[in-house]
Amino acid sequence: MDFDALFATQLNQLKEEGNYRIFAELERECGQHPKAQCHGEDGKRQITVWCSNDYLGMGQHPKVVERMQEVIGQCGAGAGGTRNISGTNHHHRLLEDELADLHGKEDALLFTSGYVSNWAALSTLGARLRDCVILSDELNHASMIEGMRHSRAKVVIWKHNDPADLEAKLAALPANCPKIVAFESVYSMDGDIAPIAEICDVAEKYGAMTYLDEVHAVGMYGPRGAGIAERDGVMDRVTLIEGTLGKAFGVVGGYITGSKTLCDFIRSFASGFIFTTALPPAVAAAAQTSIRHLKESSAERDLQKVRVAQLRQMLDRAGIPHIDNPSHIIPVMIKDPVKCRMLSDYLMDEFGIYVQPINYPTVPKGTERLRFTPSPNHSVDDLRHLVSALEVLWKQCAISQAVA
Amino acid sequence: MDFDALFATQLNQLKEEGNYRIFAELERECGQHPKAQCHGEDGKRQITVWCSNDYLGMGQHPKVVERMQEVIGQCGAGAGGTRNISGTNHHHRLLEDELADLHGKEDALLFTSGYVSNWAALSTLGARLRDCVILSDELNHASMIEGMRHSRAKVVIWKHNDPADLEAKLAALPANCPKIVAFESVYSMDGDIAPIAEICDVAEKYGAMTYLDEVHAVGMYGPRGAGIAERDGVMDRVTLIEGTLGKAFGVVGGYITGSKTLCDFIRSFASGFIFTTALPPAVAAAAQTSIRHLKESSAERDLQKVRVAQLRQMLDRAGIPHIDNPSHIIPVMIKDPVKCRMLSDYLMDEFGIYVQPINYPTVPKGTERLRFTPSPNHSVDDLRHLVSALEVLWKQCAISQAVA
Ligand SMILES: Cc1ncc(COP(=O)(O)O)c(C=O)c1O
Ligand SMILES: Cc1ncc(COP(=O)(O)O)c(C=O)c1O
Repeated sequence: MDFDALFATQLNQLKEEGNYRIFAELERECGQHPKAQCHGEDGKRQITVWCSNDYLGMGQHPKVVERMQEVIGQCGAGAGGTRNISGTNHHHRLLEDELADLHGKEDALLFTSGYVSNWAALSTLGARLRDCVILSDELNHASMIEGMRHSRAKVVIWKHNDPADLEAKLAALPANCPKIVAFESVYSMDGDIAPIAEICDVAEKYGAMTYLDEVHAVGMYGPRGAGIAERDGVMDRVTLIEGTLGKAFGVVGGYITGSKTLCDFIRSFASGFIFTTALPPAVAAAAQTSIRHLKESSAERDLQKVRVAQLRQMLDRAGIPHIDNPSHIIPVMIKDPVKCRMLSDYLMDEFGIYVQPINYPTVPKGTERLRFTPSPNHSVDDLRHLVSALEVLWKQCAISQAVA
Repeated sequence: MDFDALFATQLNQLKEEGNYRIFAELERECGQHPKAQCHGEDGKRQITVWCSNDYLGMGQHPKVVERMQEVIGQCGAGAGGTRNISGTNHHHRLLEDELADLHGKEDALLFTSGYVSNWAALSTLGARLRDCVILSDELNHASMIEGMRHSRAKVVIWKHNDPADLEAKLAALPANCPKIVAFESVYSMDGDIAPIAEICDVAEKYGAMTYLDEVHAVGMYGPRGAGIAERDGVMDRVTLIEGTLGKAFGVVGGYITGSKTLCDFIRSFASGFIFTTALPPAVAAAAQTSIRHLKESSAERDLQKVRVAQLRQMLDRAGIPHIDNPSHIIPVMIKDPVKCRMLSDYLMDEFGIYVQPINYPTVPKGTERLRFTPSPNHSVDDLRHLVSALEVLWKQCAISQAVA
């Protein structure tokens, strides 16, 4: 059987739809964020990254970088085993304590990524709680969806950010089955934010546990950077808070926090936690340093908010439409995968501006977009350069539409 | 609903069976492997690790450590995004090229872990190849099992390392459905090795593709450390070779290698590859350094083989039964979870020897064991100390059995 031919057929379909992905090959330059080198056929050139999830530039913060180097010198490169078989390091434990403290929970549990933490925690909860039903916001992330799917528990989808619809769905379920309400705080593609308190009201009324993904909020919101639940003063009402170490904290890895028993349960039963090499001790130590810094310093968050507001204002003045939302994410809708890729290529080639086209399956077909994430490290000049480039593009598009 | 009570019930059951896991909290000391500090209630003490999967001590090799520190200085701590959205770094590409070369394949694809590479690749293949059947060795690793399960493809289990049974199972399937034969080379708990050539003979006869997990073999076998398929001269007959960067290579991460089209297919469709932050560039660079070193140097492999042979001989002389196998893994069967934990605790407390009890679900109930992995860094004195400790234990057990 010609397997390559089977694969090629499906790849060709992607290409025809304009959904085939081409990765930009970057070389980050420590201390220069958001500038980076981009490798192309004719060598490399400096560009400005406008779509990084190292939202606050912490991945290049001197404290984080130095700590990671230091602990590599002390402990070596890797953990040397799974958490159970010689891979648990003192630095994992320190980080788990730090995370529990961050979210005001009894305990925390580290995973190799945010993806794995969602997948492993939801699949374990859904599979091991008898007759469990998971109530899932319709826009939940792929990692949560795959976890729920893997659990084979019954999943009920509720309307995005709609506590009334959640209540209707909860009310229709038998009173005595375990229920999990799963949702995110900041939705990363539209940048809207969940009404956590209202969702908790409903969940509590029906005795459901709450599962909150704060991946795009940790480090970014709340006085200590614990996320939207902290900002809204409702951390204690959420049963399980999940997060990543790879976005605002700038390193890599994921985690859950909750009661001691809950964390012990996932630790003891989740295949995706048990059967995999632990994160390098130096990754844990670097992440801990980043978290501690952002617990105490709001300077990065504050300056980022300024830049986000400035970019929105400049886009408005230039007449470039963008989705209005209460977060740090600025989506500019293109609504066509081919155009989205074309605009992105043009920005890169002509202006040294790198913003990845966001196409299916990351967003639904027909909602393709460019998604800008200003950091405190973007200068006002960077903002001006971006907006004037977009103005040029928009004028050309208007012309091409007029002659079409 | 009292969720903690539900969790506690299941945890208590684990405890009653003797399968509740207690992690040893280590602090690896760079350059001292297999010595490490172990944290306990009364502070820390130095112990000897006997169950690490940093099989060759590469996680502490000066070249690897320095390279990781260097690239952190150049690129920062993290990748800053998913592979598609600003997270692809030049060092990822270099590592993928290195891996393709290592296994003699056209291309390679990096994942955050070996677990994720198995789970994501098998779930994508199984789900997207219509009417696909996966033929799985009965002792395959959890990450492969979960991937197959997630794919919802039909899975047929064949007898462990038994090409004749595989053939019988293949012959019973319709001729025209796509078939994937999934197996490992070195099985990490028993230490036995698959007859890859014979399995390929059968697979080829029935037009099946072969999926080989070399996680416990990469870096360790073959003239360039590409694994058992290299040692046996059959790399080109295996369709997809999967491996880890977290065991003999000493860092963290996982990968697949195969044809360009195969890698592009998984890259384009695997949720577990797409929707997650990329590995830190420095992790990729450190892994590449480790791979390159082990391509050229056999010194680590050779000395490890010596140590493995020495330990086996010394155990034989001392009359301590262990599973005979052709690999670097030395399992000593205890066959009871409570005893296994007791012996492990005793070795740690009395002799500073750390070997984790291997209990269910890592191995089937009733096959609990201690599993020793001698590295080139274990000295002959380390071996002697271990064997004399085991002799003391065995004598005590004999006495306790005599009086029982
Ligand atoms: C909402 C959400 N949850 C989880 C993840 C996965 O986190 P990680 O990148 O650490 O795997 C992502 C993105 O990557 C995400 O957007
Ligand atoms: C056979 C096998 N495959 C895959 C894995 C997972 O690899 P990783 O530790 O890189 O996640 C392991 C163990 O961890 C394993 O034993």
